[in-house]
Amino acid sequence: MKVIKFGGSSLASAEQVKKVIQIIKDDDKRRFVVVSAPGKRASNDRKVTDLLIDLYDACITNKETFATIDAIYQRYAEIAAPFGIDSAVLADILESLQTLATLPITDNSYFLDEILSAGENNNAKLIASICQASGIPARYINPKELGIVVTNEPQNAHILTKAYKKIYEWRHAKEILIIPGFFGYTENGQICTFSRGGSDISGAIVARGLRASLYENFTDVNGIYAAHPGYIHEPETIAELTYREMRELAYAGFSVFHEEALMPCFQASIPVVIKNTNNPSHPGTQIVTERTNLERPVVGISSDEGFSMIYLSKYLMNKEVGFTLRILEIFRDFDLNYEHMPSGIDDLSIIFRSEQLNEETEEELLRKIAYEINPDELRITHDLSLVVVVGEGMKQRVGSMAESTAALARKNINLEMINQGSSEVSFMFGIHKEREKDAIRSLYYTFFE
Amino acid sequence: MKVIKFGGSSLASAEQVKKVIQIIKDDDKRRFVVVSAPGKRASNDRKVTDLLIDLYDACITNKETFATIDAIYQRYAEIAAPFGIDSAVLADILESLQTLATLPITDNSYFLDEILSAGENNNAKLIASICQASGIPARYINPKELGIVVTNEPQNAHILTKAYKKIYEWRHAKEILIIPGFFGYTENGQICTFSRGGSDISGAIVARGLRASLYENFTDVNGIYAAHPGYIHEPETIAELTYREMRELAYAGFSVFHEEALMPCFQASIPVVIKNTNNPSHPGTQIVTERTNLERPVVGISSDEGFSMIYLSKYLMNKEVGFTLRILEIFRDFDLNYEHMPSGIDDLSIIFRSEQLNEETEEELLRKIAYEINPDELRITHDLSLVVVVGEGMKQRVGSMAESTAALARKNINLEMINQGSSEVSFMFGIHKEREKDAIRSLYYTFFE
Repeated sequence: MKVIKFGGSSLASAEQVKKVIQIIKDDDKRRFVVVSAPGKRASNDRKVTDLLIDLYDACITNKETFATIDAIYQRYAEIAAPFGIDSAVLADILESLQTLATLPITDNSYFLDEILSAGENNNAKLIASICQASGIPARYINPKELGIVVTNEPQNAHILTKAYKKIYEWRHAKEILIIPGFFGYTENGQICTFSRGGSDISGAIVARGLRASLYENFTDVNGIYAAHPGYIHEPETIAELTYREMRELAYAGFSVFHEEALMPCFQASIPVVIKNTNNPSHPGTQIVTERTNLERPVVGISSDEGFSMIYLSKYLMNKEVGFTLRILEIFRDFDLNYEHMPSGIDDLSIIFRSEQLNEETEEELLRKIAYEINPDELRITHDLSLVVVVGEGMKQRVGSMAESTAALARKNINLEMINQGSSEVSFMFGIHKEREKDAIRSLYYTFFE
Repeated sequence: MKVIKFGGSSLASAEQVKKVIQIIKDDDKRRFVVVSAPGKRASNDRKVTDLLIDLYDACITNKETFATIDAIYQRYAEIAAPFGIDSAVLADILESLQTLATLPITDNSYFLDEILSAGENNNAKLIASICQASGIPARYINPKELGIVVTNEPQNAHILTKAYKKIYEWRHAKEILIIPGFFGYTENGQICTFSRGGSDISGAIVARGLRASLYENFTDVNGIYAAHPGYIHEPETIAELTYREMRELAYAGFSVFHEEALMPCFQASIPVVIKNTNNPSHPGTQIVTERTNLERPVVGISSDEGFSMIYLSKYLMNKEVGFTLRILEIFRDFDLNYEHMPSGIDDLSIIFRSEQLNEETEEELLRKIAYEINPDELRITHDLSLVVVVGEGMKQRVGSMAESTAALARKNINLEMINQGSSEVSFMFGIHKEREKDAIRSLYYTFFE
């Protein structure tokens, strides 16, 4: 049994929803369908979720809400038009939006979640009706009924472990269940949304709860690219990658999934496949616990900018634990997280995301380090990019590292930092951000032809 | 003005001392001479210092000391023989040894230092007489008179900063001063020795105190080799290297100097040259604060075995400061120092010297980490060697790193760890110890032809 999730662009128009209906019909293992709110129809369009934020703003400032409610309603009506569904469904959607706008507001935070959830919730109702009209035995189910119990944190809810047991009871549901993504209910019955991009996590939670054999995540790309298409013309699609590979790629700029979205599937070893609603016959990218085909050492190359590096050296400093502890305590005092801490014999570098410091706090930090550590040398480098080469097949990495450094040397790209050793899945280069594109290209054409 | 120091092998026999006398005569800037105790004349010989340890052992166990005293005395007598010095000098040496053996022992630790210091002290007296007999206006000076004031730590004395001021007052000494190395006097007038190899530090202290233009350290090799002669047949001698380069080489197996021996010269930016008593026309290896000739990127390659690596990974662990702090606190609880801590996205490796743990404490450590950190994966790798490629000329290291990894790849040497980033002077590879020799060879022939 498969859990299938459709993103906003897959549900943005009647034309898209026709593809979705066909996809559901194509495989009778697709029994649980998680839906997002209708997304953009074109790049200059607005998503339903953005319109709902407008509605929220109008409500809390006591402005006129009619036009916004109508704009939202029209999106659903337009999608519904060709399918000949029961008109009561649309009337119900309009009424629920009007009701939302007149709710007494006791807490802005909960009120926002109430409004935001309407995008997915109404869409699930609509898609369920469209399914029925298309001959699919489906029904809408509310997340409360399904058992998605979450922590009491508006806009940042987390699933409670006991939810999985409740969800599991639905595994033999007679009908295909159409589930709105993006939100759950607290134990007190309050709606709370996951952080943005949260329909992905709804799908993963449902897949874990039901112990699905596969979580199919339908979006508008053929899968995960081996490099950023902004840097590489028509990069390859990755056929299969492990959770760890995906995580390493995501760290440095790949933003296919929200950071924690796949955690439930990872924990339950449920494979995930990313597929394209517009090209469903493409096999997509499969994310698995362990990969069988390791012929190719590298699966992908990613990069991220915005790092800084503090370098400090002190003759005979010795890397006593106490010494590093002191530095990390200073970092803690400044509420700074570090990313990497490569060390030489008598020196240490600390790489961290630059956004954590402004000019003033940076000066304070350096002054504190200078005062407490009294290094022979202390300096900071800005505008560092991290380039990550990822692949479980590199475990015997002799060749891959040599090929990578040679590729960078050919382009005369200076390496501020190399980090390898901890992860068996990747290695990492720190370079000046101006050379990031060159580095990605040079590495890509080394490992992918 | 130069401070010159002769090691034990340079003073092991009359023949060697003749070379020393000539070296002192060859340059009239050589005004302060630090001497070790007579060393081995051949590989199966015993050093005077070792004989003195025998004497100490005999004294504290109330055994007969006559034979040992005679053996020590004969070493001095043999050296003195061809120079025709005043016989009172030898008689004085014999008497002082006999007196030592009858001293009341109140504290073994101080008594040991009293005995140990006799090797250098008597040799300084002897060499001063030989100088005089050879027409050099020289005299013995006791470290107390010179101003070498040290901390009250037998076998582990450290110089007190105020010593330098006192030593400086001797800069215009009329005679060439012959100074015994290896020990100083506490403020209470107690003899304390530096840690073993401590004549090097005596020379460095004197050079700093006198603000010498050069500290010449005479030994029995032409200088520092670019790689271990046990691995490479007739490796090149390094002409010039910086303090930092030397320190990086010393970290991984180069043992030309005792760890802290050059600290005083480093602090005062006094250049040091390592020269060969048996080949004084060879320019030797000069150790400087900054190098001018950076044409060659790499100056040397060294390696050391005996490292272990703990690897831990945890999906979405995030490298929060708090997380690393916890690991380092566990290390501190076990009184463990770590060497390097490379990190991936969701993982971390900690490399440390294996000798710090035994089987039992290792198991305890791993159990504690497993319990407190609860990682997805935790394992330990033993028998790791670190190979370090050193050179200030690698600052633009694009090419050097690529050449190094290619050299290791050609020999199919797997890299457990690569560390670059902190030091601008070196990078480091972690490999299995069985491949250490292959790695050194492959790297050496890449950078030195």
